[in-house]
Amino acid sequence: MTRSNWSVPETEVVQRVHERLDAAGTDVLATIIDVEGNAYRRPGAKMLLDDAGEGVGSITAGCLEDELLAAAESVRERGRPELVTYDLMEGDEDVWGLGVGCNGIIDVLLEPLTEAYRPAVEAFADGRNVAVLTVLEGRSGRLEEGDRAYYHSEEKGLTTPTGAPASEWPAELSGPAGELAERGRADVVELESERGSLAVFTDGIAAPTDLVVFGSGHDVGPVTELAAKNDFRVTVVGFRGSVDLEERFPDADETLTTSPGAVADAIDLDERTYAVVMSHNFVDDRLAIEGLLDSPVPYVGLMGPEKRFQEMLAAFKDEGRTFDEATLSSLYTPIGLDLGGGSPYQIAHSIVAEVLAVSNDRTPRHLRTREGHIHDRVTVESEGDVAPQ
Amino acid sequence: MTRSNWSVPETEVVQRVHERLDAAGTDVLATIIDVEGNAYRRPGAKMLLDDAGEGVGSITAGCLEDELLAAAESVRERGRPELVTYDLMEGDEDVWGLGVGCNGIIDVLLEPLTEAYRPAVEAFADGRNVAVLTVLEGRSGRLEEGDRAYYHSEEKGLTTPTGAPASEWPAELSGPAGELAERGRADVVELESERGSLAVFTDGIAAPTDLVVFGSGHDVGPVTELAAKNDFRVTVVGFRGSVDLEERFPDADETLTTSPGAVADAIDLDERTYAVVMSHNFVDDRLAIEGLLDSPVPYVGLMGPEKRFQEMLAAFKDEGRTFDEATLSSLYTPIGLDLGGGSPYQIAHSIVAEVLAVSNDRTPRHLRTREGHIHDRVTVESEGDVAPQ
Repeated sequence: MTRSNWSVPETEVVQRVHERLDAAGTDVLATIIDVEGNAYRRPGAKMLLDDAGEGVGSITAGCLEDELLAAAESVRERGRPELVTYDLMEGDEDVWGLGVGCNGIIDVLLEPLTEAYRPAVEAFADGRNVAVLTVLEGRSGRLEEGDRAYYHSEEKGLTTPTGAPASEWPAELSGPAGELAERGRADVVELESERGSLAVFTDGIAAPTDLVVFGSGHDVGPVTELAAKNDFRVTVVGFRGSVDLEERFPDADETLTTSPGAVADAIDLDERTYAVVMSHNFVDDRLAIEGLLDSPVPYVGLMGPEKRFQEMLAAFKDEGRTFDEATLSSLYTPIGLDLGGGSPYQIAHSIVAEVLAVSNDRTPRHLRTREGHIHDRVTVESEGDVAPQ
Repeated sequence: MTRSNWSVPETEVVQRVHERLDAAGTDVLATIIDVEGNAYRRPGAKMLLDDAGEGVGSITAGCLEDELLAAAESVRERGRPELVTYDLMEGDEDVWGLGVGCNGIIDVLLEPLTEAYRPAVEAFADGRNVAVLTVLEGRSGRLEEGDRAYYHSEEKGLTTPTGAPASEWPAELSGPAGELAERGRADVVELESERGSLAVFTDGIAAPTDLVVFGSGHDVGPVTELAAKNDFRVTVVGFRGSVDLEERFPDADETLTTSPGAVADAIDLDERTYAVVMSHNFVDDRLAIEGLLDSPVPYVGLMGPEKRFQEMLAAFKDEGRTFDEATLSSLYTPIGLDLGGGSPYQIAHSIVAEVLAVSNDRTPRHLRTREGHIHDRVTVESEGDVAPQ
């Protein structure tokens, strides 16, 4: 497999699934269901394997490739999903021969890519959060292993692959599915009821987080590039005089030109939008900042020293505009994490690192000083008889 | 100018200077001498402008391009250096027309690229720190404006463009020049003596910092790519069974295969080497870690949970090996900053962010919580009559 296909952003894996569905290929989709020990990826990580043995995406750091290809071939031939467990615990020397010994026990769902996946990729393409629910074990009423339903953020309830209400499915799954869909995380939800017991793999696929960059200087380029690699959906907003934005920022998903006083009209500014303001023009930046602080955007990064923002606040005050502390808490200036670099890429790296940390609700620090697990453990709250594994 | 040329890593700008010297082009080199206010880049930032108006590197976020091209044309025609001051202070509305108003006052040295720059680029190519000293103002003995000398980290004293000892130059400049060369920073050093007064632009060009990545899984790719963009000189070290490293990791400056127990023999591990260990093999990682902890390497990042390193320490202990706390303080595991991402690029982003922070001696945090300036102010210690501006 080529290096570039392996490390594509998550969003591109889902897009590729969409393309291959449209092309009616005979691909096999591998998804991590569960991990134990020191796995590189977490549940929900996906890899799409085509019949030529080429893969897109990753579920390990390259440890299981041959095994996965063989398993995918078998799934393709038999035409039905399989759940495969790879025990890569260290200590058992050379389990996989040649000392590749990666670590952890990984449960992987391998399935022929079918139209049953279409509701998920179409929701993703429309910018809606979705969860794909698959019965892993157990029975409940007419439900059995392999059955599938979807949770869409806008419909709340579960639906079948044809879009009908999934009346056979326990309604209690909607709560955990909604949370996992919103967070883009995956977990096995176990459910006990008088109708039976079920273990349901609930694979939340969140719509990409939007990063809107205000500015059109050269320095926008590295920010756009690194943000796209980190799975943000990037929009570059230029102000008057900005030309060729699409050509100059090929990594942006969208580009547009507007007036700095009208940013809130031109773009959808919601709770999942992160904003970086770097027009290098005081007046333009100030107008954009005003629109952003009046919006529910949780992060507004502003390039330039703190003193410059104080001057903006003074100018606002002269116009009778003030902002309370809660509003100002979303304002990050100087923008970025304190990494000490001064080159265009180093500045962009520090900006994207900050946006990642804030969007994942993390306090930036060395992981070695963090208590607990590197990956958040998903704890799904639910009523009564639904419990996360 | 194309986007890719503008945002090239610093190291590539110096390499391009070297190439263009060899090609005997009529390029003009622009270097920031001093900044005041909210400038995007700091002193020492460089841009090379060829006679077709194409530039490599950046000294602003794109504000001064037309002005710089015109000034470069004039320098090329007259064949001598010029010091140009651009006043981009905000508040003076539209100084540069069309509202591009960037900020700050920037002093830029524009000079025809001549053989006088060769000692610097050759030192850089050899991995030696160097400083280029240029008299900006004043006289001292026979020295006058535009005169140039070099500081090489290995020779300590100053030399002329021909390599002879720079006997006309005050020896007191060696101290500040050495420090600036090592840190890769630039400053104007002012010097008063009975022979006269001088303002000397001292442009430190540090050899790139080495990042050595131990491992050959796919996940090494994004780390290598992002580290190279951030100006590290990247070496990928594979262990037994690693093939096609050069082809698989094209962003690496060097690749090699060795045995994990012999890393210290295979690579130069010094105070400027940063190490990332991610072979995903417990035994290999442990052997590499042992060699690294026995070396003066200031940073050893180890992929995997903290528990895994505790198991390594237990295995070391069984062999009678222990490490004191000072040694273990260079060990960062889990590797990376806590940014919360789980995709290959997000993991790589967090690793490179950590290496940047440690190599720049920064505590990772939001810049908005940092006291003082974003960029360190260079304070050069020197004896007697030398004082930084």
